[in-house]
Amino acid sequence: MRFQEVVLKHVLTEVPNRHDFAITERSVPSPDGPGSLIVENICLSLDPYIGSRLRGRHMGEPAPAPGERMPGFSVCRVIDSDAAGFAKSDWVLGEIGWASAGRIDASKVRRLDSSLPSDAHLSVLGIPGLTAWAGITQLLKIKPGDIFSVDAASGPVGATAGQLAKSLGARVIGIAGGQMKCALATDYFGFDQCIDRLAPDFAAKFAEACGAGGPTAHFENVGLSILLPAMTRLAANGRVVLCGMIEHYHADQPPMIPTGLIIGKRAQMLGLVVYDFQSRQDEWHAMAKRLLAEGRLKYLCDEVQGVHSAPEQFERLMRGANQGKCLIRFTPDR
Amino acid sequence: MRFQEVVLKHVLTEVPNRHDFAITERSVPSPDGPGSLIVENICLSLDPYIGSRLRGRHMGEPAPAPGERMPGFSVCRVIDSDAAGFAKSDWVLGEIGWASAGRIDASKVRRLDSSLPSDAHLSVLGIPGLTAWAGITQLLKIKPGDIFSVDAASGPVGATAGQLAKSLGARVIGIAGGQMKCALATDYFGFDQCIDRLAPDFAAKFAEACGAGGPTAHFENVGLSILLPAMTRLAANGRVVLCGMIEHYHADQPPMIPTGLIIGKRAQMLGLVVYDFQSRQDEWHAMAKRLLAEGRLKYLCDEVQGVHSAPEQFERLMRGANQGKCLIRFTPDR
Repeated sequence: MRFQEVVLKHVLTEVPNRHDFAITERSVPSPDGPGSLIVENICLSLDPYIGSRLRGRHMGEPAPAPGERMPGFSVCRVIDSDAAGFAKSDWVLGEIGWASAGRIDASKVRRLDSSLPSDAHLSVLGIPGLTAWAGITQLLKIKPGDIFSVDAASGPVGATAGQLAKSLGARVIGIAGGQMKCALATDYFGFDQCIDRLAPDFAAKFAEACGAGGPTAHFENVGLSILLPAMTRLAANGRVVLCGMIEHYHADQPPMIPTGLIIGKRAQMLGLVVYDFQSRQDEWHAMAKRLLAEGRLKYLCDEVQGVHSAPEQFERLMRGANQGKCLIRFTPDR
Repeated sequence: MRFQEVVLKHVLTEVPNRHDFAITERSVPSPDGPGSLIVENICLSLDPYIGSRLRGRHMGEPAPAPGERMPGFSVCRVIDSDAAGFAKSDWVLGEIGWASAGRIDASKVRRLDSSLPSDAHLSVLGIPGLTAWAGITQLLKIKPGDIFSVDAASGPVGATAGQLAKSLGARVIGIAGGQMKCALATDYFGFDQCIDRLAPDFAAKFAEACGAGGPTAHFENVGLSILLPAMTRLAANGRVVLCGMIEHYHADQPPMIPTGLIIGKRAQMLGLVVYDFQSRQDEWHAMAKRLLAEGRLKYLCDEVQGVHSAPEQFERLMRGANQGKCLIRFTPDR
């Protein structure tokens, strides 16, 4: 049996595009002793942090070398098991990368409930949802009366953060790139307002949406182009989560914020790293399943078919052209 | 009756020195109708923020124009009152500036307890003490087990912050410029350790003093030369109060911190503006008087005599050459 994979062609020096990747074909290996699994890919997650990782700027993890497989997590189906407790057809979450199948150590996977959709495991119940939960409930501690702003508002973190903030009693102002994403934020995800960051009067419209007092809490997913105007409008004693800085992942200089803005606003700046909250995923799942059942939490995936689509889909993600959580579908859930 | 005052000679473009000021003499005015007080200066406070204010960079307050009196708060004695409830010999805190006497509106003063020393009113019970209290108890919320670091450790904010943190159960690491200030921090103020920021091996010594985990809470009074190494060593989920940035008050560029450092450390960055806490001074005074009585809180003033000493004393403050809270003594307390 053969499988396809995507490898990095060369060392990256700027924002990745589809031409930075090549598709190759290999043989599926056999289990290599106790504890190993052979899995097929059901659905692969493409995430903004991979852009940062390709430059060696993500949590100290090395960038893949030219010729190496692209990294990434997938919902996988076990097709051959040499590990106790894992049987054929079991679902696991594991990092086999951009590949239609692979071998993985059972100690490095997490078992998944195959009665739930694979796209939910990778979006609202996965890392993006956990990120939003951590920021909203553990760091910002959103409460009734908050004026909450979040950018990348139709993306999987922003959309979940906005819906959670709404469910906790905040007024929710989204920020997104373009009218279509803004419409998704308000009409599909139920944000109170969403401001187009690409419009020339963005700063004025954002200020107007937040009202005279400004946002009391802000969740940053993009970078300084949003963070600085949001902090300039921030209410005194406002809280700010720094989560993602996608617009700077390929910049020469690291993003910097003036200490005077933090002091002047009496702000609380809060750094969020989702990996710190992985042991608390059950808490988030309990809340998420309740909100999903009540229709108060929605998710949206931008899914394309097959490993050969991954380079172009990743380029779309890096350009912000995606609509919802970026996924690559390999096989149907059932 | 004549009085002396210090005026600014010219617009400042760099760190102020004694030659930027001139001493003039004027007549003490009479009360100008209901509500005004004529006061003599007992003791004037010189504060780092005045350096920032001289450049028009302090809370939006304008810099004094050339020929205008230097601003600053004093403990004053009423010598003539046209205000209900104020009698001759009453003590008030008011901003008459660098002058041996002046006229001030009674609505702009705060009555002081004249049974306490004037230098205590301007240091441990004044704005520096309140700043330390706000940072330690309201923002950092220091608790037993914290590893607490603070710079300008022998200064009035740093020394009070360190003693409060110690009284709340933290291990206290000071940072100060020079061996004499370090000795004051440990031997007089009771810090566990104090590291000389001017020593070539400062970063290594600081790291060693904090231990493998790094500081869990840091209080910043100086600027990036300390803040960046302290944040680099900060414990995960560490808290950082941004209070003063004296080393940048005369720089061309505002101080900036990389967002990656905040995110990587999962830090809480907390902006402190002491004016927000002025309505809560009684809470601080209750705690301070108890600690003072128990001998667990000390203060140290660097006092010189007479208005003509103010320019040189201010230059010393701006160079960090002072030992303790900078004051100008005009008349004895009693």
